[in-house]
Amino acid sequence: MSQNRRIACYLILILFLCCIIQGELIWLEEIPESQILPEQNAQNGFEIYRDTLELVWEELVWFPVPESSVNEQATVAFENSWMAERNYGGKRSHEGTDLMASIDQAGYYPVVSITDGTVEQVGWLEKGGYRIGIRSGNGNYYYYAHLASYGREWKTGDAVAAGDILGYMGDTGYGPEGTTGQFPVHLHLGVYVPLGADKELAVNPYWMLKYLENSKLTYSY
Amino acid sequence: MSQNRRIACYLILILFLCCIIQGELIWLEEIPESQILPEQNAQNGFEIYRDTLELVWEELVWFPVPESSVNEQATVAFENSWMAERNYGGKRSHEGTDLMASIDQAGYYPVVSITDGTVEQVGWLEKGGYRIGIRSGNGNYYYYAHLASYGREWKTGDAVAAGDILGYMGDTGYGPEGTTGQFPVHLHLGVYVPLGADKELAVNPYWMLKYLENSKLTYSY
Repeated sequence: MSQNRRIACYLILILFLCCIIQGELIWLEEIPESQILPEQNAQNGFEIYRDTLELVWEELVWFPVPESSVNEQATVAFENSWMAERNYGGKRSHEGTDLMASIDQAGYYPVVSITDGTVEQVGWLEKGGYRIGIRSGNGNYYYYAHLASYGREWKTGDAVAAGDILGYMGDTGYGPEGTTGQFPVHLHLGVYVPLGADKELAVNPYWMLKYLENSKLTYSY
Repeated sequence: MSQNRRIACYLILILFLCCIIQGELIWLEEIPESQILPEQNAQNGFEIYRDTLELVWEELVWFPVPESSVNEQATVAFENSWMAERNYGGKRSHEGTDLMASIDQAGYYPVVSITDGTVEQVGWLEKGGYRIGIRSGNGNYYYYAHLASYGREWKTGDAVAAGDILGYMGDTGYGPEGTTGQFPVHLHLGVYVPLGADKELAVNPYWMLKYLENSKLTYSY
């Protein structure tokens, strides 16, 4: 029996040691985390994001709506509506910029590509109407929505040059295919940067459009 | 002796179990990390950075160099030299934008504050010469360097309104206090956003300056 008691004592002693060892293991893992996350990771993360955004700015070429060489009245106006509330299809925030037409006539204003790239999405979307999505060389996504019609029969994979006419400004969307007139004629522009494997993050196009206001093509319309 | 052997067997068995338990503990901790870091954290992190940058754009008011109402020759030119190499004081990358004076005359061009804010740093720096650093209401830091002189006797904590004359463009720096002429007359502008407790990250002022080119004050100089 005294032998069994000796065994029992050994078991308790060893289990006690195991607990201490495990406790230290966990303690050792916590220190680096609490040191790295706030400082190092934040720094690196922000630098990555900063450089990601830099790749958007670098590839911006033309303002999406050319100037009219014949009609001084044909202008567009836009405000910083970043994350303003939208209601169609449930409450959501506005992830883009609306360029409003001074002449509320669908199909009147040409819409050109801001950047070089390739067509990734084209056709009808309930919220976006006739839309086209261009994937740029730097991997960013430019979304042009509510078009009245397309500049040509764009197909997925088609190459696009900055300044190419993607389509004509309209008021399509907010319903089944062909729906028009649910809002004034305007171009909705969205800009998305890649985020990890298959995620994207919307960034505010307003400042980019202000920057591009000095880079307008002139068309006769 | 057989008792001792029995004890030895127990010890080995228990130590073996402890190893398994510890192995599983570590394995269990690895799973959430590998799931969370790439997706969730990146998403949240980037949204925070995006909103941090938004706070810079929102507070930009005036281009830092007013237009001359009397001398058409008095212009400034700037390029996107972001992270271009600089050599004075050891190899480093350029964390700002240089606005070069068409008239290479120290003290000729006024330099105004881009934003509202308060004076945080003022006086001589070996690399920056006579510089002034403005902390904006949104907590961002605007660094104006190489000034020939100051617009007034700025002191730390002084309130600054966008458009206030901070000083006059010069060629000070790259040596002990008072050093001039080591480079052409220009304004070096740096923009820094807060990053965690006591860190800051430089962002590229070039696009902000392009945006502000449409917002120039006019002074008689």
